[in-house]
Amino acid sequence: MNYKMMGRFIARIILMEMVFLLPALVISLCGSEQDAVFGFLCTLAIMAVLCGILFLICRKSGRLFGAREGLVCVGLSWITLSLLGCLPFFISGRIPNFVDAFFETVSGFTTTGASILSDVESLPKGLLYWRSFTHWVGGMGVLVFLLAISTGGEQGKGFTMHLMRAESPGPDVGKLVPKMKQTAIILYGIYIVMTVLNVVFLLLGRMPLLDAVCTAFGTAGTGGFGIKNDSMASYSTYIQIVTTVFMFLFGVNFSCYYLLLLKQIRGVFKDEELRLYFAIAITAVILITLNIHQSYSHWGVALKDAAFQVSSIMTTTGFSTCDFDLWPAFSKGILLMLMVVGACAGSTGGGIKVARVLLIFKSLQRNIRKILNPRKVMVVRNNGRAVDEKVLDNTNAYLSAYVIIVIICYLIISLDGFSIGTNLSAVLACFNNIGPGMEAVGPMMNFSGYGNLSTLTLSIAMLAGRLEIFPILVLLSRSAWKGH
Amino acid sequence: MNYKMMGRFIARIILMEMVFLLPALVISLCGSEQDAVFGFLCTLAIMAVLCGILFLICRKSGRLFGAREGLVCVGLSWITLSLLGCLPFFISGRIPNFVDAFFETVSGFTTTGASILSDVESLPKGLLYWRSFTHWVGGMGVLVFLLAISTGGEQGKGFTMHLMRAESPGPDVGKLVPKMKQTAIILYGIYIVMTVLNVVFLLLGRMPLLDAVCTAFGTAGTGGFGIKNDSMASYSTYIQIVTTVFMFLFGVNFSCYYLLLLKQIRGVFKDEELRLYFAIAITAVILITLNIHQSYSHWGVALKDAAFQVSSIMTTTGFSTCDFDLWPAFSKGILLMLMVVGACAGSTGGGIKVARVLLIFKSLQRNIRKILNPRKVMVVRNNGRAVDEKVLDNTNAYLSAYVIIVIICYLIISLDGFSIGTNLSAVLACFNNIGPGMEAVGPMMNFSGYGNLSTLTLSIAMLAGRLEIFPILVLLSRSAWKGH
Repeated sequence: MNYKMMGRFIARIILMEMVFLLPALVISLCGSEQDAVFGFLCTLAIMAVLCGILFLICRKSGRLFGAREGLVCVGLSWITLSLLGCLPFFISGRIPNFVDAFFETVSGFTTTGASILSDVESLPKGLLYWRSFTHWVGGMGVLVFLLAISTGGEQGKGFTMHLMRAESPGPDVGKLVPKMKQTAIILYGIYIVMTVLNVVFLLLGRMPLLDAVCTAFGTAGTGGFGIKNDSMASYSTYIQIVTTVFMFLFGVNFSCYYLLLLKQIRGVFKDEELRLYFAIAITAVILITLNIHQSYSHWGVALKDAAFQVSSIMTTTGFSTCDFDLWPAFSKGILLMLMVVGACAGSTGGGIKVARVLLIFKSLQRNIRKILNPRKVMVVRNNGRAVDEKVLDNTNAYLSAYVIIVIICYLIISLDGFSIGTNLSAVLACFNNIGPGMEAVGPMMNFSGYGNLSTLTLSIAMLAGRLEIFPILVLLSRSAWKGH
Repeated sequence: MNYKMMGRFIARIILMEMVFLLPALVISLCGSEQDAVFGFLCTLAIMAVLCGILFLICRKSGRLFGAREGLVCVGLSWITLSLLGCLPFFISGRIPNFVDAFFETVSGFTTTGASILSDVESLPKGLLYWRSFTHWVGGMGVLVFLLAISTGGEQGKGFTMHLMRAESPGPDVGKLVPKMKQTAIILYGIYIVMTVLNVVFLLLGRMPLLDAVCTAFGTAGTGGFGIKNDSMASYSTYIQIVTTVFMFLFGVNFSCYYLLLLKQIRGVFKDEELRLYFAIAITAVILITLNIHQSYSHWGVALKDAAFQVSSIMTTTGFSTCDFDLWPAFSKGILLMLMVVGACAGSTGGGIKVARVLLIFKSLQRNIRKILNPRKVMVVRNNGRAVDEKVLDNTNAYLSAYVIIVIICYLIISLDGFSIGTNLSAVLACFNNIGPGMEAVGPMMNFSGYGNLSTLTLSIAMLAGRLEIFPILVLLSRSAWKGH
């Protein structure tokens, strides 16, 4: 392990976070929000000192290489970002408990959107902006951003590939073009254009600018931090529909948009994952509408609410327009299932990902065929091409790790004594980066009821979910820290 | 597919069930329980007619071969056994709803022990005996029994191996001796001796004979049908402790007992699965005792109750001495986890099995190492020997199928509107063949609240759980039914 180079890498991450904090500081200065300004300035000072120390100690010496260093750097970067990013909330005194502030920030960067705040609207505008901005940059990936703007050269190929792999979710790496840096630039390009479009559509609905920007950040990153206490319930139908559509769009694999840019429309329509994503979403909307329409005055309203909630939960955004915890058990069951499935690979959404679900089903199907015909050699195909056995192995390992983490987290947070439904949905909502769960952590409630041990556990679950488990598991493995 | 031979096979299964029914008929005759006698006689008549028709239509023609026919026969046999075995309950009018009677019988054969009866004690003794006997024969396996008593020769090797594989649970086939028939005889030998010992110990505690036999049946098969409305709560401490110990013993891999008979004691103590089984059970008992002792007058009582419930849930028996649904959330969380883990492979217990959990962890560990050192070749070892990659693949496929089935069943039964905790624990309790769940299906409640669609779904889940999923999944696969 090249610890010095890792130190330099972390220092650059901190530098980047400092730049990210500046707009929030400006907003707070304009609004003369004294506590927030104080929080931001102290945070920037601490970051500057840390950065300086790291650059001093860790002089340039060699390059960062390979899978191991890549994974460790990803894990450490995200933890550093969250530990420092929560300081404005803590120092300003708006979230006086450090563990809670950490939870809130991890929830931001991982695009979970679970909150321990019961009164969001009282927060200074600068902090609201910062809270939503973490969604935006966390959604597409902090390291992908670094990759897009970096001059490169310092990092080996295996290393950058692991940065990309860790942050752009899915069973396989989504290289659009041969060069990683180019891929990162294209991804962020599409991301920025779509976010701007989202803001414009919201402004057309007469949403105030800051509200529109924050909502677009939450939508684009599939995060879900609302800036109103009732999430999106009090906004107009137009704004709710715009958000429904954009949440759904941000849950699509970004390589599909790239193919659209290249006018390879047929490739997009033939994409098996995209088809399944549409199929699941439409089925869920229909089933829920049928299930809930009786308690609504009008079919249209039921359909609108069903579509919004399905789009929000499936893309793991977590906005809500109604208290879906009051829905019948069947609809809640569908939402729980959507929580686990999640969005498309290569999108900003979380969950197991539709592509993985597809692979799990296909590999299961092959296994049944193999039991029936032990001697036949069978290959799993995706979009017509054979899937590498390694990817299948990884997908299965992912599912095991997923189940194990859910069980362990459930056990730890159950010490706080909540019901099975609360605990299970809390774990699923955090681990899949959704936000709201059911019962005591439902869409109109928040996570403040949990103790420090539970919020810390759930914070780690959020990180593990966002980075697809392995970069966090690797940090716990001894062999990751041994010398080469 | 050789349908004629399959018909003959099913006919023999029915013949065997007729013999099994005779003792129950005798008990009912002795007690002059008219409705039960009528039920048994009608059932026997129906079975005899069916059997005759099948033997007539399906004349001898060739042999049964291979994996495909083996799996299909296993699935069909269990469904036939349950469909016919539930007739005494239905015809006697004691369970007037056919779907409920089917549920109760499947619950018996699969050793689940979930019941739709709210007043067990009012049942005629003959039906009580039959209900508990299904546990006993289902525990070690109906086809294993057939294998032990059959003259053989009709079935190919691959076929009999699949009968064994489907009924003796675990990731790998538990052949004790090269010949399948011998293995089956040894297994049933150990099983009968241990059951008799259990009866003797219960009789020493002054339990009435029929109670002792029924309780031993439920313990041996890790079934859990009680013959009292409060399960085991009203029995003496001695009887509760005896049952705790025997439940735990029947959850051990039977090949360990065979090794003990061969005096290979060291091999038993070194068995990784057995060690983990003990470790999990002891940890669970300690944690639960610490968690619940405050609500008990005495530590000893808390320990006794914790040990009983852990032993009962982990071996998937499902007896209870107290209402563990009233325990704190943490203890309930541990029980939920134990439900999923289950007992040892090659025991009469259900669940994922400790051996599979071990393999899942090891294969996950290897995967992490592989990510860190992509070029190294690594082998997963169990008890010092390398595990076949096929077994690992199957284990991972098992886990995927497990998760998918849990989700689908959850969705279907959630139509009945119960809470998340009720529905989830109902699915886990049935699929893992445990019996009682939590909340509305807790140990002092029963499954009668669910509608027909749900009880049918849960019945299929029980069968899938008992036969380790694939023999049931295969029945749904088109390629299983295609000609050779």
